[in-house]
Amino acid sequence: MSDKKKIYKPKPISGFPEWLPEERLIEQQWLDKIRAVYESYGYCNIETPSVEELDVIAAKGEDVDKEIYVLERLQKGEDDKEARLALHFDQTVPLARYTAQHFNDLTFPFKRYQMQKVWRGERPQMGRMREFYQCDIDVINVDQLPIHFDAEVASICYEAIDSLDIGRVQMRISNRKILMGLMDALNIDNKVEITRIIDKIEKITAEEYQKLMQEHGATSEQINAIQTLIDCKDLSTLVPSNDDMKQGIEELQFVMKQLSHLPDHAAIVDLSIVRGLDYYTGTVYETQLLDIPEFTGSVCSGGRYDDLASSYINKKLPGVGISIGFSRLFDVLRQNDKISTKQKSPADILMIMPSEDMRQQSSDTARILRASGHKVELSHGGKLKRQLAYAEKKGIPYVWFPPFEDGLAHEVKDMSTGEQKQVNPNDWAVK
Amino acid sequence: MSDKKKIYKPKPISGFPEWLPEERLIEQQWLDKIRAVYESYGYCNIETPSVEELDVIAAKGEDVDKEIYVLERLQKGEDDKEARLALHFDQTVPLARYTAQHFNDLTFPFKRYQMQKVWRGERPQMGRMREFYQCDIDVINVDQLPIHFDAEVASICYEAIDSLDIGRVQMRISNRKILMGLMDALNIDNKVEITRIIDKIEKITAEEYQKLMQEHGATSEQINAIQTLIDCKDLSTLVPSNDDMKQGIEELQFVMKQLSHLPDHAAIVDLSIVRGLDYYTGTVYETQLLDIPEFTGSVCSGGRYDDLASSYINKKLPGVGISIGFSRLFDVLRQNDKISTKQKSPADILMIMPSEDMRQQSSDTARILRASGHKVELSHGGKLKRQLAYAEKKGIPYVWFPPFEDGLAHEVKDMSTGEQKQVNPNDWAVK
Repeated sequence: MSDKKKIYKPKPISGFPEWLPEERLIEQQWLDKIRAVYESYGYCNIETPSVEELDVIAAKGEDVDKEIYVLERLQKGEDDKEARLALHFDQTVPLARYTAQHFNDLTFPFKRYQMQKVWRGERPQMGRMREFYQCDIDVINVDQLPIHFDAEVASICYEAIDSLDIGRVQMRISNRKILMGLMDALNIDNKVEITRIIDKIEKITAEEYQKLMQEHGATSEQINAIQTLIDCKDLSTLVPSNDDMKQGIEELQFVMKQLSHLPDHAAIVDLSIVRGLDYYTGTVYETQLLDIPEFTGSVCSGGRYDDLASSYINKKLPGVGISIGFSRLFDVLRQNDKISTKQKSPADILMIMPSEDMRQQSSDTARILRASGHKVELSHGGKLKRQLAYAEKKGIPYVWFPPFEDGLAHEVKDMSTGEQKQVNPNDWAVK
Repeated sequence: MSDKKKIYKPKPISGFPEWLPEERLIEQQWLDKIRAVYESYGYCNIETPSVEELDVIAAKGEDVDKEIYVLERLQKGEDDKEARLALHFDQTVPLARYTAQHFNDLTFPFKRYQMQKVWRGERPQMGRMREFYQCDIDVINVDQLPIHFDAEVASICYEAIDSLDIGRVQMRISNRKILMGLMDALNIDNKVEITRIIDKIEKITAEEYQKLMQEHGATSEQINAIQTLIDCKDLSTLVPSNDDMKQGIEELQFVMKQLSHLPDHAAIVDLSIVRGLDYYTGTVYETQLLDIPEFTGSVCSGGRYDDLASSYINKKLPGVGISIGFSRLFDVLRQNDKISTKQKSPADILMIMPSEDMRQQSSDTARILRASGHKVELSHGGKLKRQLAYAEKKGIPYVWFPPFEDGLAHEVKDMSTGEQKQVNPNDWAVK
């Protein structure tokens, strides 16, 4: 018999992405940038548990239910009589539950952001992610929420995506009251179904669109009137058919005016944006990356809702929010070589260890540099050539040589230019 | 019939902690500080999926298996023929699997940190957390790993905990080779069991300890020899009984010398530290908070191991690492009012909105201040008194008044002193 250990060769798990250190470094930088923008507007962070009670999370519609992951203990004990737990599939249900549960401890308007992983048990063959980050921002108030927050969250999300430096970002903004008002004026009864068809307009052909509308009872006159509306680019040319439509137009005009500080391409009116969910009642947003054709669909979406948490609390809690689908964004850019993975270490300096008896000198120098804010990797030693190769391989921009003997100076080598010069650790700063 | 909606009043889920925004603000600051220290030494981050294949994660011993959470889709489909998935219960198994799986893409020595949630389905009545953060740091190399890394990870973890400003931190360090060598010299066969008893020495009475040792066959002579060893505070007085013991003493002396730059209380030799796991083969660490008596046990622990990943790859991968049990640390200090929850917003400035027609002025000023690095919450407006009360309630340190009419100056109020003065937004910086 062989005493060789049996080896289980691990493989990737479909839908659960995992990055190499150099990719994760960029992912962290992106998450940091989004967080910094969210916080620069004073939004506070919350983090909810990965699980909710199944009763809280389920029954939001069968499509979603199918994708819910429930937890089971591998070996059940007699004490397993508690509520069943399930991983959250978004951050909206947890936000609603959180706001209701902690209602008396929160300050309203409750401005919060949340950047966590969510889980959806999608079919693997669809190539979708089953675990991914969402970066959500919402503001919730009691009874009513001023319309200027609809502009603020749009402004924040634009700035957050723009901070990633991935080309021009364009938010397409509408207000559902306009279309809903028009459909009322046109005596369309099945507004929910018709809205869902309009939501698909960019994903299906013109013929398919016509056919679907007709199948759902829309007349040519109704289809044309809707088409005229969603083709409209200038709100001032719209003639409201009723109060709802009028209010929608005014709200949208106000929001666009508040966004006038942004570049021209950044925010446009697009009345074809309706979002599929009934949940939304006013402003709605989708967002395109104009310079990344590989990224299809909306990178962040959201809208205004009237009723966040009435399943959990007897209060009217209107809100407005946007969610960045972070992991898909990152993965598409990663797969299309739009991120740099040259740097494989957070360090900006590799501290050379000339020899074992110079260890103290090297580690003292590293400490001085860390105290002035540098990130310094202390080399593990060995041949000088191999230490330099290590810095090269990890993409560390500077290599530091402590004096090889007493009386000599410290020297720093810039790995990008090859230039090497004498320096003093006490006053050295990376330019 | 009433059309009142049925309300499901949410309640906390046992073992899955959730913080208020002001508590989460501190938790984020702590996580940021630990991350900053880890990165200042050039350790790179990885993040593994929340799940592993059950075959990868299970069978590490029945005690752990009992606590594993397995995922099940709420509604199983015909395509559910894939491997069963389970939430990871630590970050060591994922590190081993990751290192094996990506072996050819990693640079060794592989210095990584990892700060994720882990899940353990412990019994609720024990009051333990079922979801919590661990902050791990490890360095892995191929074939052999220099001993100076045993000092480096200790130094990093000391600095990380010390950065939280929660009083004096003390690492207690030993080397398992010393005790193992002594037990060999004493002809003790059941070293694993005896080691586990010694590991409990601080949790049980002297009588219980004696009894357990005797039950496991230890003679008085053996018990006394072990006691003499673990009472030893000065390594130079130890006479090694064999090569293993000698090597252990030398390694520990080397590690302690490398830590001599730390304050006196920071790192001490404590030969009673053995860690329960067989896994460890050399240096072992535990860590006490000297000024927080409410925190019992070790805040971070770890050690040297010879064989990280031989279950997954045919390579010898020794490593050394330490894990901070972050969530328990945070929760104990939180419950004992050792964290300040005065500030409920990340903002340092609340921008007053004097009236609706001053909106543009207020939001332009907020933008200027954000561009210079400030975090500025734009007030939602309303009565001035209520806006000030909002700033007070959220603990925002400065309130900014844009000019109420043309020609007037900007003014800033320091909420802690009440002092209010004229300022220019273009050159204002919080001191």
